[in-house]
Amino acid sequence: MKSKKSFNGRGKSSVHNRNRGEQPSHHAPKGGHPNQKPRQESRGESRGPRLKINLFGAHAVAEALLNPERTIHHIYATEQTEDDVVRMVERAMAEGIDLPHIELLEKETIDRALPKGMVHQGIALDCDPLQDAFLPDLINRAATKEKSVVVLLDQVTDPHNLGAIIRSACAFGADGIIVQSRHAPELSGLVAKIASGAMEHIPIVYETNLARAIESMQEHGFFALAMDERGEKTIGDAPKYQKTLLVMGAEGPGLRPLVRDKCDIWVKLPTAGALSSLNVSNAAAVALYAVTA
Amino acid sequence: MKSKKSFNGRGKSSVHNRNRGEQPSHHAPKGGHPNQKPRQESRGESRGPRLKINLFGAHAVAEALLNPERTIHHIYATEQTEDDVVRMVERAMAEGIDLPHIELLEKETIDRALPKGMVHQGIALDCDPLQDAFLPDLINRAATKEKSVVVLLDQVTDPHNLGAIIRSACAFGADGIIVQSRHAPELSGLVAKIASGAMEHIPIVYETNLARAIESMQEHGFFALAMDERGEKTIGDAPKYQKTLLVMGAEGPGLRPLVRDKCDIWVKLPTAGALSSLNVSNAAAVALYAVTA
Repeated sequence: MKSKKSFNGRGKSSVHNRNRGEQPSHHAPKGGHPNQKPRQESRGESRGPRLKINLFGAHAVAEALLNPERTIHHIYATEQTEDDVVRMVERAMAEGIDLPHIELLEKETIDRALPKGMVHQGIALDCDPLQDAFLPDLINRAATKEKSVVVLLDQVTDPHNLGAIIRSACAFGADGIIVQSRHAPELSGLVAKIASGAMEHIPIVYETNLARAIESMQEHGFFALAMDERGEKTIGDAPKYQKTLLVMGAEGPGLRPLVRDKCDIWVKLPTAGALSSLNVSNAAAVALYAVTA
Repeated sequence: MKSKKSFNGRGKSSVHNRNRGEQPSHHAPKGGHPNQKPRQESRGESRGPRLKINLFGAHAVAEALLNPERTIHHIYATEQTEDDVVRMVERAMAEGIDLPHIELLEKETIDRALPKGMVHQGIALDCDPLQDAFLPDLINRAATKEKSVVVLLDQVTDPHNLGAIIRSACAFGADGIIVQSRHAPELSGLVAKIASGAMEHIPIVYETNLARAIESMQEHGFFALAMDERGEKTIGDAPKYQKTLLVMGAEGPGLRPLVRDKCDIWVKLPTAGALSSLNVSNAAAVALYAVTA
């Protein structure tokens, strides 16, 4: 049985309304009296410590609840999403995972706990980040397999692109993603939302020195395939390898020379239109398809 | 020589500072006097008619300036981007395209003319939309070619996804995109920004009845290939056709039955991971690669 390292092993998903009763609703103080404190502050005071939300969105939360490696402190739903969240929790509990109560919040309360413009779908968690993954984890994961693909991203700084690549890498059965410590986005709620649950399934390794990481992977039987416009062959014409490290750079600048030069082969996508460049997450999906199909 | 249907054929790209001199800077009224009108209003009044911006971002603007079919009323840059925009305008003028002066604005002035959160990179246009494209345009465009791919999108409602698909379709040399009038996003500045200039190169047709559109394409020699999880074959194992209509549905609901049933073959992507679904723009990029490579 999986057992959850939860702070709260009540093991029953009763619903507890965080916003009704104990605390004044955030709708309460709405008047325009000039001596009134700014709304933001008075809200903060009435709610006590600031609400912490670091995972949101239906797919991201559903997969996190099912992940026995996730420590979850609070599960938040709105009245509209309560039934969906109860189903998610029941599914996780059927897998032997203990979870805290579901707490009901107003949509706007969740809005305020997140950076502007985040679409949380009324489903959110306060949880710990996953444990860091390291290069040996990927190498061990791949060691027992006949075939393996790992994705290495150089200078991909946009969280939307990272999230979409995590999702595609998971869908095509990749064994991990390697990014650079200094320039890659952190694994935020936004990245998790866009990865649509895939962040729970694929190790993401932050490495300081990507050239060195490529060497390590090569030492463990990986063939490093750089996606680069200057490649002579298209990716479809490149040989198929049992273990492929797919090395991709940012749109525009592309791979840095010190990263590209470590690779065994440079290949390009067979694009042919008036404008030939793809968004990096689209290029990654195509490359993953081409090396795994 | 291409000639531009511009309201303003001055044909010289002198820089005209919209924000210095004639108009008070938007930084001016910043005090906190209680009788002062709300900042938003006073700004609006001091600037006269609201600034209209409907295309923005470096790639989107660069390609629009080069498109002789685009009627451009105003070209906006910031002090930081002025040199880049001058280069774009000079490149277009070298192609025989007449353009209005470049006008300098503050970054914040452009921010305010756009919906919240739009990343305009300090480069923006007031321009007319492109002329509507119709199904016969696509059919004629494909008629003279030996091979052709057209993408049809059912229920793809997210502008980010539409923009990314336009970009990929252009990169893989597709001859057009068909979307549904009622549910598809309009070709907004956001879609154009994400399409990264591709909107200038590929006709996008809005059709009321997608099932009927599929029939029309079939009558003109297109083989309708539906991307559907229930397909028996993977897209790589499907036969290659000279003329392919790639029919894709939204994530989640997928293709509506009345659309799917019109198609000649249903195929799926060979995804295999813990979570097998791809973002729709990533799936479209893979499908475009698979049918064109």
